[in-house]
Amino acid sequence: MSSWTTWFAEQRAAREDAGLQRTLRPRAVDEDVIDLANNDYLGLSCDPAVRRAAAGAALRWGAGAGASRLVTGTTALHAELERELAEFTGREAALVFSTGYHANLSAVTALANKQSLIVSDAHVHASLIDAARLSRAAIEVVPHNDVAAVRTALGAAGGRRALVLTESVFSVLGDAAPLADLAAVCAEHDALLVVDEAHGLGVVGDGGRGSVHAQGMADHPHVVMTATLSKSLGAMGGAVLGSAVLVDHLVNRARPFIFDTGLAPAPTAAALAALRCLREHPARPSGIHERGAELADRLGVPRSAGAVLSVPMPSPQVAVAAQAAALAAGVRVGCFRPPSVPDGISRLRITTHAGLDDARWEHSVDALVRVVKEHRRWP
Amino acid sequence: MSSWTTWFAEQRAAREDAGLQRTLRPRAVDEDVIDLANNDYLGLSCDPAVRRAAAGAALRWGAGAGASRLVTGTTALHAELERELAEFTGREAALVFSTGYHANLSAVTALANKQSLIVSDAHVHASLIDAARLSRAAIEVVPHNDVAAVRTALGAAGGRRALVLTESVFSVLGDAAPLADLAAVCAEHDALLVVDEAHGLGVVGDGGRGSVHAQGMADHPHVVMTATLSKSLGAMGGAVLGSAVLVDHLVNRARPFIFDTGLAPAPTAAALAALRCLREHPARPSGIHERGAELADRLGVPRSAGAVLSVPMPSPQVAVAAQAAALAAGVRVGCFRPPSVPDGISRLRITTHAGLDDARWEHSVDALVRVVKEHRRWP
Repeated sequence: MSSWTTWFAEQRAAREDAGLQRTLRPRAVDEDVIDLANNDYLGLSCDPAVRRAAAGAALRWGAGAGASRLVTGTTALHAELERELAEFTGREAALVFSTGYHANLSAVTALANKQSLIVSDAHVHASLIDAARLSRAAIEVVPHNDVAAVRTALGAAGGRRALVLTESVFSVLGDAAPLADLAAVCAEHDALLVVDEAHGLGVVGDGGRGSVHAQGMADHPHVVMTATLSKSLGAMGGAVLGSAVLVDHLVNRARPFIFDTGLAPAPTAAALAALRCLREHPARPSGIHERGAELADRLGVPRSAGAVLSVPMPSPQVAVAAQAAALAAGVRVGCFRPPSVPDGISRLRITTHAGLDDARWEHSVDALVRVVKEHRRWP
Repeated sequence: MSSWTTWFAEQRAAREDAGLQRTLRPRAVDEDVIDLANNDYLGLSCDPAVRRAAAGAALRWGAGAGASRLVTGTTALHAELERELAEFTGREAALVFSTGYHANLSAVTALANKQSLIVSDAHVHASLIDAARLSRAAIEVVPHNDVAAVRTALGAAGGRRALVLTESVFSVLGDAAPLADLAAVCAEHDALLVVDEAHGLGVVGDGGRGSVHAQGMADHPHVVMTATLSKSLGAMGGAVLGSAVLVDHLVNRARPFIFDTGLAPAPTAAALAALRCLREHPARPSGIHERGAELADRLGVPRSAGAVLSVPMPSPQVAVAAQAAALAAGVRVGCFRPPSVPDGISRLRITTHAGLDDARWEHSVDALVRVVKEHRRWP
């Protein structure tokens, strides 16, 4: 037998002791639950036009892309989506990836190498952390949203090419980065600012064009934008948005782009249909913010810059209990514990959804206020 | 302006000089080309049942999974696919990922860390190379298919946990790894053998159950199998197959699993339908080998262990010209140049397809024999 089995068992026992063991719980198609754990903030995943676009693409193009996008896996659908994503966000060009993880890995590893410096906000997503590690650049982690610390780190770059990594809306705490200040510091030092708009696109700014656009930086030469197609756009995949020369560079140099089968036709078409839906209904993202403000105020937690409300809990065990109580009341929320939190604090993560009808939203708010009140003072 | 623009331009100029510049060429849905560049070896991507399954899932479940599989992105579809994948390959359990890249990154980074040793075959796929780097383990690259070198490297592990990385059928050269010998050496040293079956599943062994199964190692405690759902299964995504405790470990520790939106319903259902189709037609993979042997013999290149024929060319420029000539004759083949080749040699990469009708296959063989003859002696 293998000593690995013992090793797996020991690690599982340690996780169970710490209240950190996770198991997958498959959901049924017909479950009667209000889902405020997912990132489908606008309900576009289940929009009839988006569903039909996905289904139609699978029937028309087949189930898969068949190969790397550089070989034969780029379809006219991919090109159309890239054109419209770039146009929507005001950027010159876009490149679509199979996942947001691939987009972040690609952007960072194609722009940085052993001779580079990466300055990373302490709260960035795992995919940016892994991307920085994979690039083999020198990494300096700076305190969350600390522009002065970024300036100091870039001042010490000593001629190395430098990237600064941040998110427009942080994925767990829901707060915003000081993008304009960061971009100014980057321009000053000729560094690139990589902004992950995973939780900004479809949520923030004019019609959901994202934070980079909202800050008037759509054509900023020192700003690289990354995004996902799996959150507000309700589909799957990721994108990098920037100059045409940047996209050409990624096509040629980004290993997680070159060596990956292209995004399948169904999610590609779904993201395109969702983007068109967003363009036709530019007021839709505002519902996220109105409802988010209401819920934050009722819960007594800071308002979110996007759709993500963070509700700190006294322990991982209490967070799990609170999540279960919410589910018993018909509302699913996220329960984030280490290693999925940037500060070690377990919390409920509640997303505000613009697509829910008023009755279900009001039921959710009442249930969550009651559950959080009961659990934050527990035991 | 930004010095990055100059840097991009310089790198592009260098690529152009070396014949290594790549651009994306979107294909139309109705193009009349025989595609021997893609990895859809059984034609399942366009099988009517597979297309319908993808379309039906998008209509029924929506366009996206909505969140990480640990949050609310695991559907009953994912669980069904995992059960049937495990059953088909004879392994105890399976875990589905958004891409094969995610599967390899996850398996390796969750099993190795700074204190580990990774022994990697010189020809493994970029995703395994990146996975090894990301794990921060000590990495020893051994010559291609050199079992003695693996034994020597493991003998020097000195108590470190060790992984050995290989592929069952190598993705560019199409040759096979000596799996039984590697597994024996791994068992001897209590190391895990990670076998990427991206090009083995659906191709090799009884009904396409893959090389691990064909070698009688489906329940081998020192063998971890990874696979893609985007090649012979015609969909999108990846999988890790092994013991239930391994899968539990990955669910809890693999960052590219935890921090990624789940595979969308359409490709999940498509992979499941393709797997069922494969089970109902167990003789289908044999067509790959018969046709592959015929084409290899006619081209005068070694036969493939799977569906991939490698045809070395004198230079990247000649490889590109030969690919263009084949396309002009109605046959698309892959043209692999650095950095997409393990040995620096540019080549045509031709995949043999069991799904084509005889007339189109014969046309392809004649065209390719002519094109290769013309270009291997060129200029």
